[in-house]
Amino acid sequence: MAKRLIFGHRNPDTDAITSAIAYAHLKRELGEDVEPVALGEPNPETQFVLSHFGVSAPRVIERVAGEVDEVILVDHNERQQSAPDADQVKVVEVIDHHRIANFETADPLYYRAEPVGCTATILNKLYKEKNVSIPRHVAGIMLSAIISDTLLLKSPTCTEEDVKAARELAELAGVKLEEYGLQMLKAGADLSQKTVGELLTLDAKEFQMGNHKVEIAQVNAVDVNDVLAKKAEILQAIEKKIAEKGLDLFFFVVTDILNNGSVGLALGRAAHAVEEAYGVKLEDHQALLKGVVSRKKQIVPVLTEVLSK
Amino acid sequence: MAKRLIFGHRNPDTDAITSAIAYAHLKRELGEDVEPVALGEPNPETQFVLSHFGVSAPRVIERVAGEVDEVILVDHNERQQSAPDADQVKVVEVIDHHRIANFETADPLYYRAEPVGCTATILNKLYKEKNVSIPRHVAGIMLSAIISDTLLLKSPTCTEEDVKAARELAELAGVKLEEYGLQMLKAGADLSQKTVGELLTLDAKEFQMGNHKVEIAQVNAVDVNDVLAKKAEILQAIEKKIAEKGLDLFFFVVTDILNNGSVGLALGRAAHAVEEAYGVKLEDHQALLKGVVSRKKQIVPVLTEVLSK
Repeated sequence: MAKRLIFGHRNPDTDAITSAIAYAHLKRELGEDVEPVALGEPNPETQFVLSHFGVSAPRVIERVAGEVDEVILVDHNERQQSAPDADQVKVVEVIDHHRIANFETADPLYYRAEPVGCTATILNKLYKEKNVSIPRHVAGIMLSAIISDTLLLKSPTCTEEDVKAARELAELAGVKLEEYGLQMLKAGADLSQKTVGELLTLDAKEFQMGNHKVEIAQVNAVDVNDVLAKKAEILQAIEKKIAEKGLDLFFFVVTDILNNGSVGLALGRAAHAVEEAYGVKLEDHQALLKGVVSRKKQIVPVLTEVLSK
Repeated sequence: MAKRLIFGHRNPDTDAITSAIAYAHLKRELGEDVEPVALGEPNPETQFVLSHFGVSAPRVIERVAGEVDEVILVDHNERQQSAPDADQVKVVEVIDHHRIANFETADPLYYRAEPVGCTATILNKLYKEKNVSIPRHVAGIMLSAIISDTLLLKSPTCTEEDVKAARELAELAGVKLEEYGLQMLKAGADLSQKTVGELLTLDAKEFQMGNHKVEIAQVNAVDVNDVLAKKAEILQAIEKKIAEKGLDLFFFVVTDILNNGSVGLALGRAAHAVEEAYGVKLEDHQALLKGVVSRKKQIVPVLTEVLSK
């Protein structure tokens, strides 16, 4: 069988990158010819994780069709979040924990999605189902993905299965869950060196919601004021993105990782959807979203509902 | 948790009906409140199966939204094959072995698809993963689904996993695989009492392929000439369906269950796609398709490719 590439979504976060590596490890143990790759450079949090556990960053690719005929997607399925030419290859497997949308195949495939907080939690099950043991460094990066996606098990996306998997993986990785988790989140939340352009692209995803084209960018911060200090410049940059991409809404979400909430900046002709979704009033495009930390669970579904009416 | 309905596709075949029953049994053993239902009456093959193993036919429903808020799909995912108002409820789980298309959710869900010959083969794994034993009558109907979908393990859709599952289930059901399988297929292939209208709707599915609306109906026959004797009437009825539904192609496939091949009748402005897909010439709308027995593996993907160009 020819080699298959395994990769997560564009603007990869820790789960996208480490799940590709962890699933590739499992597949190789089972004798399959696969390579983990990434649709972008690791962010600072992921860099911290890889360096902490001594794992090399995967090769960064832009396109897949010239290189392989078959691919495996982890941590995403939506077309606009995948390789731009993913429609020219065959998707033979998907391991994911998101909604399914803008995804279509001509043939049957292996699709494993579960409504858990992190792809790594599903991979932890697959290792067990296949009776393959998880080495220390792979357990470490899988644990990091769970910490990242669930904000150290505090996000509403976090399920009992994620908690259980995190505890097992911390044991295998030989780290203290709380201590390592805070250290890792802080490493990722250091936004002091970021340009406004970087803040808006670090973890940005595009969605089709009803007839609306929506982009939602999220950053984690130890102090949201570090980011809001640049608000004027951020608003200008968002206006420019809306014009360039023909977006109906750009929603920039700055999540306070210590206090469990976010500040949102919403621009575009559909910005009213944010007011309606959260019962808030945008003031100078800004609103406080108490308790909102999860794009997947607390932002995408509620905005989709408002914008699909 | 409020009750959830579990159902297979419209024009249900043996896998669609028995998978709903078998998955509901598993869910109930796990303490969940579910009811298996069906989007149509059992066909003669399925009636034979249910009566052989003493299982009641599931309640037939037309709509779901008035009754429950959440549903579980088995053996299908495409919108046009599901309940007409499935978009008004939340799909919380899908267990399937088909391609994914025309399927979209607002929230994460449990989605388990594997490229195997039959949904029952996946259910057999889920029983093991959950450590629930399969009672004799449930094993019997699951086995029947595999026999039906793989034409007694001879279809190209049949995988090693299906063969393994069929052997295990035959053992649990206390039947001889070959002997029971032939008896069951013959019971389902008795088309002598069928009207032309029934032949064209018994196992018909609609597909969107590129910009084309395609309907593919398939029947299994012990002797294809039993069906072709009514060809003039069949062609007339197909013309009428094309006009009523605005189809670009209606493909009627009569599969010879003893000799591993089919005769196809193709009508509609996109009928040329059949000629291109199989390198055949339609004569009076008819062509012999040697070795073609599987709609899912040998018809849908090749027609989709031709019609998506």
